[in-house]
Amino acid sequence: MKSVNVGLCGLGTVGGGTYRVLRDNQAQISARAGFPINITHIGMRTVKEGYDYTGITVSQDLLEVTIDPNVDVVVELIGGYDLAKEIVMSAIENGKHVVTANKALIAVHGNEIFAAASKKGVTVNFEAAVAGGIPIIKAMREGLVANKVTSLAGIINGTGNFILTEMRDKGRAFEDVLKEAQELGYAEADPTFDVEGIDAAHKLTILASIAFGMPLQFEKAYTEGISKITAQDVNYAEELGYRIKHLGVAVKRENGIEMRVHPTLIPEKSLIANVNGVLNAVLVNCDAVGQTMYSGAGAGDTATASSVIADIVDVARLVGTNARPVPHLGFGEIDDSIEILDVDQSETGFYLRIEVSDKVGVMAKIAQIMSENAINIEAILQKEPAEDAKTLPVIMLTHKVKEQDMNTAIKKLEALDDVVEPVVRIRVEHLNG
Amino acid sequence: MKSVNVGLCGLGTVGGGTYRVLRDNQAQISARAGFPINITHIGMRTVKEGYDYTGITVSQDLLEVTIDPNVDVVVELIGGYDLAKEIVMSAIENGKHVVTANKALIAVHGNEIFAAASKKGVTVNFEAAVAGGIPIIKAMREGLVANKVTSLAGIINGTGNFILTEMRDKGRAFEDVLKEAQELGYAEADPTFDVEGIDAAHKLTILASIAFGMPLQFEKAYTEGISKITAQDVNYAEELGYRIKHLGVAVKRENGIEMRVHPTLIPEKSLIANVNGVLNAVLVNCDAVGQTMYSGAGAGDTATASSVIADIVDVARLVGTNARPVPHLGFGEIDDSIEILDVDQSETGFYLRIEVSDKVGVMAKIAQIMSENAINIEAILQKEPAEDAKTLPVIMLTHKVKEQDMNTAIKKLEALDDVVEPVVRIRVEHLNG
Repeated sequence: MKSVNVGLCGLGTVGGGTYRVLRDNQAQISARAGFPINITHIGMRTVKEGYDYTGITVSQDLLEVTIDPNVDVVVELIGGYDLAKEIVMSAIENGKHVVTANKALIAVHGNEIFAAASKKGVTVNFEAAVAGGIPIIKAMREGLVANKVTSLAGIINGTGNFILTEMRDKGRAFEDVLKEAQELGYAEADPTFDVEGIDAAHKLTILASIAFGMPLQFEKAYTEGISKITAQDVNYAEELGYRIKHLGVAVKRENGIEMRVHPTLIPEKSLIANVNGVLNAVLVNCDAVGQTMYSGAGAGDTATASSVIADIVDVARLVGTNARPVPHLGFGEIDDSIEILDVDQSETGFYLRIEVSDKVGVMAKIAQIMSENAINIEAILQKEPAEDAKTLPVIMLTHKVKEQDMNTAIKKLEALDDVVEPVVRIRVEHLNG
Repeated sequence: MKSVNVGLCGLGTVGGGTYRVLRDNQAQISARAGFPINITHIGMRTVKEGYDYTGITVSQDLLEVTIDPNVDVVVELIGGYDLAKEIVMSAIENGKHVVTANKALIAVHGNEIFAAASKKGVTVNFEAAVAGGIPIIKAMREGLVANKVTSLAGIINGTGNFILTEMRDKGRAFEDVLKEAQELGYAEADPTFDVEGIDAAHKLTILASIAFGMPLQFEKAYTEGISKITAQDVNYAEELGYRIKHLGVAVKRENGIEMRVHPTLIPEKSLIANVNGVLNAVLVNCDAVGQTMYSGAGAGDTATASSVIADIVDVARLVGTNARPVPHLGFGEIDDSIEILDVDQSETGFYLRIEVSDKVGVMAKIAQIMSENAINIEAILQKEPAEDAKTLPVIMLTHKVKEQDMNTAIKKLEALDDVVEPVVRIRVEHLNG
């Protein structure tokens, strides 16, 4: 069978990994695909040393890859928005299938890109955009095709998970671990995308659209980072039988979809609570199959390359055929009437840490406010005040409550004279439906 | 687009589940597939009450489904070997794609079935044959296509996992939990297939062939059940920081493949050690992506139907096209020169429980034998003898050793006068490469 020719745009971390895995596992990949796959063109602004370019066209103008008649599949691995989008749109325009690892591009411009691709009859694959090497897009679009998704939750930022794992295992402070993560190369010099949840929100946007068959709506994802999580809260969570993870969560409600990224207490016995370090995991709750979970490396050169190459093989199978491709977001028709709910409409449990004066009657006042707002308390930890301290923390876990009701209750709590600091609150999920 | 017509053979647990999920989620499945999928023919020896057969041909001769010109995809869900094989071969003969959930059929007759299908240009899909609703076949054949698999391990029998989980959580005895599992309907009246590992060996055979691109060789899988695991060993394992799980394991060695099903100690911190109850999980170690793990329901009517329907949609995409299908075992060419190693060539750690006389010098003799056979001891638990007892158990964990060397050492241990019972041994895996 005719070989399929690949044009790579970008030879950075993921591009280099893709080059190396395609070369090192060439025989196996061809055997598995049933036809040979060759890199015939590489575009990169500065030509990298240390690669063998024999038989490969090298262009410093990356758009040349997209118009090369000897390229069947264009692989965009430069990241960012502008040039990346130009490359993808030009490749589509020229009738080529596209593979990209660019979550930001898909989350923000995916609707436009997919519309152009469908119109042109080509496919844009993006497995590596979410959870690195884990084949979660394939699982959701194809493996779970029979199901209605009820909810999903993912640890989809490895840097954040590394930081929270170290905080828990070693009692370290957030800033301390972040600094180490930067030194280890897990976190960027500007860690905002990772620790403030933007990267996770890009990925959640993609997962939620595939789960529920709706347009990508990154701007509607609620996004809260982990930079305010303290070692103290990690410890109290532990005492209550919970771990704190940075989750992307999407839940189907009667009137719309919750789509939110935030630190979350989850029961320590749940499998995903035990996904540690830089690992990622996504769990999906469905009507027919129940809960399935997928875990593995969320980043790294060859791990991400694994997903890029899986996508290449998938679109390569389409080259020169009249095959019926898998729809981009897993649905033949996208439903743009589905509403994304405002976060104050979402329903979760809450962990509250309330710093109060060490006086008789404080607990009664707190309990009174909770009761007035119909918030049920599941557990309370009351700590001794530190020596000489005149205040002490009260830690509470609540049952599921609508976030706007919790906001009302917290305002009232903070208005009490005996509550001496802003209330710390972290959402709680049981992830079982 | 033209609808795709499905003929179901069998309307038992999985067949009934498939009927219900296809009907209940009809709109979603058609939206996801991009074309309608209809059941047009059902074959069952006895016509079941309680189903709506409007617009469906019903046959009590199941082979009629396979020759119906109005059927595009034949779904075999009757289980067993003889009639199931006849149905599958007749469907292939008549140019129809096939979906089956029948692990025994694929493990034992898969090579012949796949050869016939490839010759005829049709595809036989079998996602539901391994790990129920978990899309593990798809992940391995497609999602991990770029990788060389180095090893895999799976909890691939839910009944066995339920029994071991109950034994650990509640200190119950094997027979006691088995009886409950039978009452709950998890285990068959004849539990041999489940508890003696035959069911797991069927599934492991399939996973190993896909991992390494070799023919199905069920007869070469080493198979050991869990019926001899005692609550005592579960507890000692726990004390050492391990859990006992019934695993199917396949490992690539320089000279061949280890393929074995047996009870296994795995570190309690590993994610798969925390897969409990009737859940299944498969972890795969690969060169590019590292370790990924997949967990979920391994059985159940609608969970298994989820995989059956995913297969139906996949083959439905091929109907009337010249698409390049995914090869049955994930490789275009199968390598029949790969050797399956005899179990005595396999390399694992070992947990040993040695019941010895309570005398001075016994430990020295044991240590001497281990040393002579170049077996390194990683940990020892020495227990006090029970009151009045004249013997006591010595528990050891060894480093990785070739099984034939362990066999030699155990023979020598059992020849000691002070070793008063046959040595109990359970393999140990760290599952990290």
